[in-house]
Amino acid sequence: MSAQPTSIEIFDTTLRDGLQVEGVTATVDDKLRIAEQLDYLGVHFIEGGWPGANPKDIEFFERASRELTLSSSTFVAFGSTRRPRGRSDDDPTLRHLLDAQTSAVCIVAKSWDYHVTEALQTTLDEGEAMIADSVRFLTGEGRRVLVDMEHFFDGFKNNPEFAFRALEAAIVNGATHVVLCDTNGGSLPHEVESIVGQVRTHVGDDVTIGIHCHDDTGCAVANSMAAVRAGARHVQGTLNGLGERTGNANLTTIIPNLQLKQDYLCLPDGRMERLTVVSHRIAETLNRAVNPQAPYVGSSAFAHKAGLHVSAIKRARDAYEHVDPTSVGNGTRFVVSEMAGRATIQIKAEAIGIDLDGPAINQVIDDLKRLEHEGYQFEAADASLELLMRRATGWKQDFFRIESMRVITDEHADAPFSTEATVKVWVGDERHVHTAEGNGPVNAIDSALRRAVGKAYPQVGRVHLTDYKVRILDGGEATGAVTRVLLTATDGVSDWTTIGVSPNIIEASWRALEESIVYGLLRG
Amino acid sequence: MSAQPTSIEIFDTTLRDGLQVEGVTATVDDKLRIAEQLDYLGVHFIEGGWPGANPKDIEFFERASRELTLSSSTFVAFGSTRRPRGRSDDDPTLRHLLDAQTSAVCIVAKSWDYHVTEALQTTLDEGEAMIADSVRFLTGEGRRVLVDMEHFFDGFKNNPEFAFRALEAAIVNGATHVVLCDTNGGSLPHEVESIVGQVRTHVGDDVTIGIHCHDDTGCAVANSMAAVRAGARHVQGTLNGLGERTGNANLTTIIPNLQLKQDYLCLPDGRMERLTVVSHRIAETLNRAVNPQAPYVGSSAFAHKAGLHVSAIKRARDAYEHVDPTSVGNGTRFVVSEMAGRATIQIKAEAIGIDLDGPAINQVIDDLKRLEHEGYQFEAADASLELLMRRATGWKQDFFRIESMRVITDEHADAPFSTEATVKVWVGDERHVHTAEGNGPVNAIDSALRRAVGKAYPQVGRVHLTDYKVRILDGGEATGAVTRVLLTATDGVSDWTTIGVSPNIIEASWRALEESIVYGLLRG
Repeated sequence: MSAQPTSIEIFDTTLRDGLQVEGVTATVDDKLRIAEQLDYLGVHFIEGGWPGANPKDIEFFERASRELTLSSSTFVAFGSTRRPRGRSDDDPTLRHLLDAQTSAVCIVAKSWDYHVTEALQTTLDEGEAMIADSVRFLTGEGRRVLVDMEHFFDGFKNNPEFAFRALEAAIVNGATHVVLCDTNGGSLPHEVESIVGQVRTHVGDDVTIGIHCHDDTGCAVANSMAAVRAGARHVQGTLNGLGERTGNANLTTIIPNLQLKQDYLCLPDGRMERLTVVSHRIAETLNRAVNPQAPYVGSSAFAHKAGLHVSAIKRARDAYEHVDPTSVGNGTRFVVSEMAGRATIQIKAEAIGIDLDGPAINQVIDDLKRLEHEGYQFEAADASLELLMRRATGWKQDFFRIESMRVITDEHADAPFSTEATVKVWVGDERHVHTAEGNGPVNAIDSALRRAVGKAYPQVGRVHLTDYKVRILDGGEATGAVTRVLLTATDGVSDWTTIGVSPNIIEASWRALEESIVYGLLRG
Repeated sequence: MSAQPTSIEIFDTTLRDGLQVEGVTATVDDKLRIAEQLDYLGVHFIEGGWPGANPKDIEFFERASRELTLSSSTFVAFGSTRRPRGRSDDDPTLRHLLDAQTSAVCIVAKSWDYHVTEALQTTLDEGEAMIADSVRFLTGEGRRVLVDMEHFFDGFKNNPEFAFRALEAAIVNGATHVVLCDTNGGSLPHEVESIVGQVRTHVGDDVTIGIHCHDDTGCAVANSMAAVRAGARHVQGTLNGLGERTGNANLTTIIPNLQLKQDYLCLPDGRMERLTVVSHRIAETLNRAVNPQAPYVGSSAFAHKAGLHVSAIKRARDAYEHVDPTSVGNGTRFVVSEMAGRATIQIKAEAIGIDLDGPAINQVIDDLKRLEHEGYQFEAADASLELLMRRATGWKQDFFRIESMRVITDEHADAPFSTEATVKVWVGDERHVHTAEGNGPVNAIDSALRRAVGKAYPQVGRVHLTDYKVRILDGGEATGAVTRVLLTATDGVSDWTTIGVSPNIIEASWRALEESIVYGLLRG
């Protein structure tokens, strides 16, 4: 057990292949912020983009070299081999690659004979020459060259002889890595293990074997690990499994699988604990929620719901959790819901610091059942849950009382949309009336309520909304359906989330807003 | 190749383990509708619930036996072994199991010594007796008995001798299946394959070996398949990978992996094509979108975005898709986006039936870039994309012209929320003014606009909204962020989706609504 652990290089392609995911676009600023996060996590390589295909990527590499100082990672520019029947030294793709000024480059090469003859419409000899020439040219220019062997597994199954020729063309011309790509994502782990094993036997130690998988069979993680078992020492993938179709191999899962369960070394010391926060920051930058069910980093990954388990987990955590959640920067969570037993609610109340007696617990259980039936969900709305628990002990908020609220939105031909809200509240015997404009109804009622309450409680000036989520429940009835609103607010010290549910989106928002302000006042 | 394919039993636990997923609750009606879908798909077993833990599940089995006629599937009730130091014939859990009146039952048994001594606080002998007695009692009552061996893999690693005793207690007392559960979900494929192989050697052909995985290492699909390679012939999982924490093994992926890629037989003839529709119907019933990235059934599973590929895919589909999407009831999709090349837009326009010349294509590309930058996404909004393409050819809608719109929402202490909208439109020289109430602002402006336009175009009476989705983009600025609204409407013959984006949610909805009505009028 004192042997040095074997290192596995982590090659992140979130900024190139990951951005092929549907519904995501990223600015150069977004990409710079993501690169910082990847370096903070400590991956070996950051593939920053494809300067030949996307002019913005030239700007990215330029700004990255000026603005970022990486502590752990090396930037890689992506491109392809030269064109068929062309020359390397006047090839625009290779030229763009050099323009990116990275010390390492990754080029994609066709290793499935079918794609050479049909997609490129050229001969296998020329296909091989494209690889050989391009690698020789780039190494001649002082670059470290990685070669992504596109469609390698399908190619190997159809024509292993040509697949080997493609590998050799890269290796003999100085590529440091040959990366076997399951481009269509259709392979299964036993196939990957067998083929990588054959490649390993063939190429020996001359080159690092890499693996690049897609999740079309739901096996991208397992395929990557099967490749490592067979001798691959370089794994390509993306954070959160971003990528075209079903996504690339999810590094957020592979890294802890390899390092926590198999004693490989993927990240520098002390970095694994950053996995969850990096995963969430990258998701935020791309405005794309982390799947709550994501292994290791999802908000549900260590959440326990079934009443049966909660009391047992308290006794012996490692009998119910496959790894220590803190090892990846996540934590155990006990989820309160209709299905929750008394034990769960008790634990939650204790954590908040509320003393619930027997009748109060029954009241909470009854309230949860009724409200969840109406569409409420307290799993994310901790502040609303706390207020509900406090009310079960007989507490009522007496900070303010609302008399009325009105919000008007209108548009006249060619005039801009406008929205204004009027809120009338009582604080004790004093009546406060305020009207505010907003760039939408929730923004307007928020401003008006905050100002009306703020005369008596100036501390609400510190509170502001940071997130607003809307979910339409039972969309089948469309705008007649129920709307669930989650509002997150902060006072600069901590965040809290409240919930409102109503057929009327304004009412749902208003309920969540009122609770958000009350919670802020409770915190003082 | 003419040999009979080996059958793998598919045991669906969506209605029991699947409902442990956070944020989901299901009524008895929902569960009946899901059971119908599972039978329509053709799974072997439907685990309907846990009558001992949830009284609603008794009602489910009662109504299922009266209301449903299953063509392919067998219902299974779930429970546990008898209590420690109790008797089987007066055990409430076993009694509830019998009350469910199913021909087959599945009971969970502890096979990790640690859980017997620590969680149950009893001896290993008693742990073994609990299994033996319970199985004997249930088979004596005429039930077919499956035993879920809880924490089997962790148990086997810690104390294989007790794990084998637990198996034998079930087998010698007449269990037809022993199902090896990776309850904490921490196992990796090579471990599963090795341990299932050892079990298979030990128990021989006396019993069917089943596998039950959770996705905590992102390997639930691969683990299930590794078990099948080692001799398991029964796979438990859920549709869409629903389940606690990271979810159960996703049958929607495992079934096509086994049947389309490995020649096992999982579903009756002709059922595989139902996979996508069943996956989506079940998701709808639970009001939970199917992950667009889900293998085989996701809306992105066979979507092609990169401009590079689209023209090549047109030439040789099987070089770019790992299976034929129609084999699982899905289809190839070419995605139009900022990154789309001219070829993609050309293909899309042809599909819609619009003739775009060169300058019009350039106009479309420019419009897409500008609008996607503002937050528009045309991937789901086909009707808005069509209108955009038509406008690029010089077309303008002349059905109606909007003069003004106003919507007012207000609340007075203790009076119900109310919303009314007033819309003024011109159709030719005629001015139409209409006011309508609604249960929310979108509902009110929809009613008012429809009535105002409907005087001149009675056909809009056939059109109504069926879905309304709201997404807040860049939630970091909260209610000051941009809102993206997608509206789906139908005229009873087909559906169409339009999009609106604005900082003001009412304006975004209003834009989508206007396009929705225009598109409906275009259809005639």
